[in-house]
Amino acid sequence: MKIDGVAYRTIWVNQDGWSVHIIDQTKLPWAVDILRLTEVAHAAHGIRTMQARGAPLIGALAAYGLCLALRADASTDAMERDAALLAATRPTAVNLRWALERMLTRLRNTPTSERIAAAYAEAAAIADEDVAQNEAIGRHGVPLIEAAAARKGGGRVNVLTHCNAGWLATVDWGTALSPIYMASNAGLDVHVWVDETRPRNQGAALTAWELGKHGVPHTVVADNAGGHLMQHGEVDLAIVGADRVTRAGDVANKIGTYLKALAARDNGVPFWAAVPSSTIDWSVSDGVRDIPIEERNAAEVTDVTGRMADGSVATVRVTPLDSGAANPAFDVTPARLITGLVTERGRCEASVPGLMGLFPEQR
Amino acid sequence: MKIDGVAYRTIWVNQDGWSVHIIDQTKLPWAVDILRLTEVAHAAHGIRTMQARGAPLIGALAAYGLCLALRADASTDAMERDAALLAATRPTAVNLRWALERMLTRLRNTPTSERIAAAYAEAAAIADEDVAQNEAIGRHGVPLIEAAAARKGGGRVNVLTHCNAGWLATVDWGTALSPIYMASNAGLDVHVWVDETRPRNQGAALTAWELGKHGVPHTVVADNAGGHLMQHGEVDLAIVGADRVTRAGDVANKIGTYLKALAARDNGVPFWAAVPSSTIDWSVSDGVRDIPIEERNAAEVTDVTGRMADGSVATVRVTPLDSGAANPAFDVTPARLITGLVTERGRCEASVPGLMGLFPEQR
Repeated sequence: MKIDGVAYRTIWVNQDGWSVHIIDQTKLPWAVDILRLTEVAHAAHGIRTMQARGAPLIGALAAYGLCLALRADASTDAMERDAALLAATRPTAVNLRWALERMLTRLRNTPTSERIAAAYAEAAAIADEDVAQNEAIGRHGVPLIEAAAARKGGGRVNVLTHCNAGWLATVDWGTALSPIYMASNAGLDVHVWVDETRPRNQGAALTAWELGKHGVPHTVVADNAGGHLMQHGEVDLAIVGADRVTRAGDVANKIGTYLKALAARDNGVPFWAAVPSSTIDWSVSDGVRDIPIEERNAAEVTDVTGRMADGSVATVRVTPLDSGAANPAFDVTPARLITGLVTERGRCEASVPGLMGLFPEQR
Repeated sequence: MKIDGVAYRTIWVNQDGWSVHIIDQTKLPWAVDILRLTEVAHAAHGIRTMQARGAPLIGALAAYGLCLALRADASTDAMERDAALLAATRPTAVNLRWALERMLTRLRNTPTSERIAAAYAEAAAIADEDVAQNEAIGRHGVPLIEAAAARKGGGRVNVLTHCNAGWLATVDWGTALSPIYMASNAGLDVHVWVDETRPRNQGAALTAWELGKHGVPHTVVADNAGGHLMQHGEVDLAIVGADRVTRAGDVANKIGTYLKALAARDNGVPFWAAVPSSTIDWSVSDGVRDIPIEERNAAEVTDVTGRMADGSVATVRVTPLDSGAANPAFDVTPARLITGLVTERGRCEASVPGLMGLFPEQR
């Protein structure tokens, strides 16, 4: 999508043909810092510190990280070691392991001398396929917004979203925001309630920023506000992304998603998750029981980073110095609370039969 | 309760016999600033800017504010005008109007020359009764913690609370935290999950601070985390305060309370509200429909205040400069989601029959 009129992806290869660029998302919305990655350690650091985040983008970055690793040492031992290093950077995102497994499958039987070129080609394919998938998710999601408009007899459709599942979380288009961009481009009147999404504020910092840059009307609210808005008819539709989806349709997503799904159910608001199939973990059924939840640094809760009046970026402590904090980064929304899933192949019920209907090869 | 070993209330009359002291809660947890109020405008400012907050404390401060008003002009016209001024400072808190109505009832038929003394006596009675009420709420609430301990066969009881309903929100003891202080004093092993409570962070700034000063183990979490903690058995009991309760038991409290009540219901966690009877609005039944919700300044959402590494207090912007924000300050939790109410007269079901059983005079 565009930043000040210039089309960007979130990850691309430099004109030198090998080094990799990402936008440092920890600097947004205050600065658009383009990083140049030249070593696998840069890629691992980028994933671990969330310079790049969002399940699909993490997958693409891990793939390009393996390309950088192979430039240093293309041996099988080194490749397996560096893939394991990349896989260990974030425990919850299934795309990370999916992308690395795809790379390894392609490369294990490739002669060492051809591995680097093959790796870049495979990473480019992963990135391009992500863009195509997200565009398809947008197409399949637009009818949800049209249906919401029809239900209210026209007028502005208010969509609530949590965290950032926009183009910044993917290579382009986004997942949850892809239908919103498409609907907005098509002239539908869409307004987005943007959950702040503590503790990392990806809603306030990233979703609000990218919607604003694209010209989509939006309003930031505290994560606490969504239930009240739904009680008073201010939310016509909720769409979130996902970090991992089980074969039964349970959705692991940013912490707090489950609370919004409960409120949506209590108020009859449709609650959809937009998920590229790479996000689906076909080996897991019960998400609450079986999806490991990343516990991140307590400093994300105790400290908040923002912009001072003088334009500098600063971090302030918001809890007493003697008080500890806990920071589970994701929660799992049981499929029973989810109206449906939007995938690149279409929409389905959040259930084994629903997903099997779209992905019969996973039966 | 105590700050560094010294017993405090949140509001008290100076040794001069007339000026009024409060702790500036906007400075907590970084500084304990004691303010001296000498005019009704100071009291109104203190309520409006939340130097003093929490429904019971607001009522006491409004009462003392009227005392300060009468010192300037004890005429009936001035008294009614200043009471209206004080009543307009915060729209949601019913205690504010309750305390002012009680003062006016006492003072309207008092000769002008005796009004000031009568006003101070009535304000002192309001403050003392609040302390006694909260102590009674504590006594009636301790069995909830004992029952939670019994259910899990002993060991630490994890209580989740939202916002600040501690002694800082009242004249002393608190409402939701009163049972926790009493249980902790009695040697029960209690640990408190403290919701950060965006946008004003009263949990992170006030609840964590006062629990820490009293030595109660606690952990701050983002508001988004509570549902996940409940899904995994990490919450044995939730207790919140209330800004206004309907005769049917609907609870208006800090924005986000409703989301936690939904999660408690979904996970079989008892969800209690601790409410002094002054918080109950006997004239209203349907809280979602009829309780007006204060929309506060968007800057509370867009900006966060905290402590810099050098010890200074600073405010940072967390949303893009071009993005707007909405800030509904309260939500209403329907009685159907509330396990019960703890009042100064005992515990009851959150329903008309439940409340009428404890308050038969309101039939």
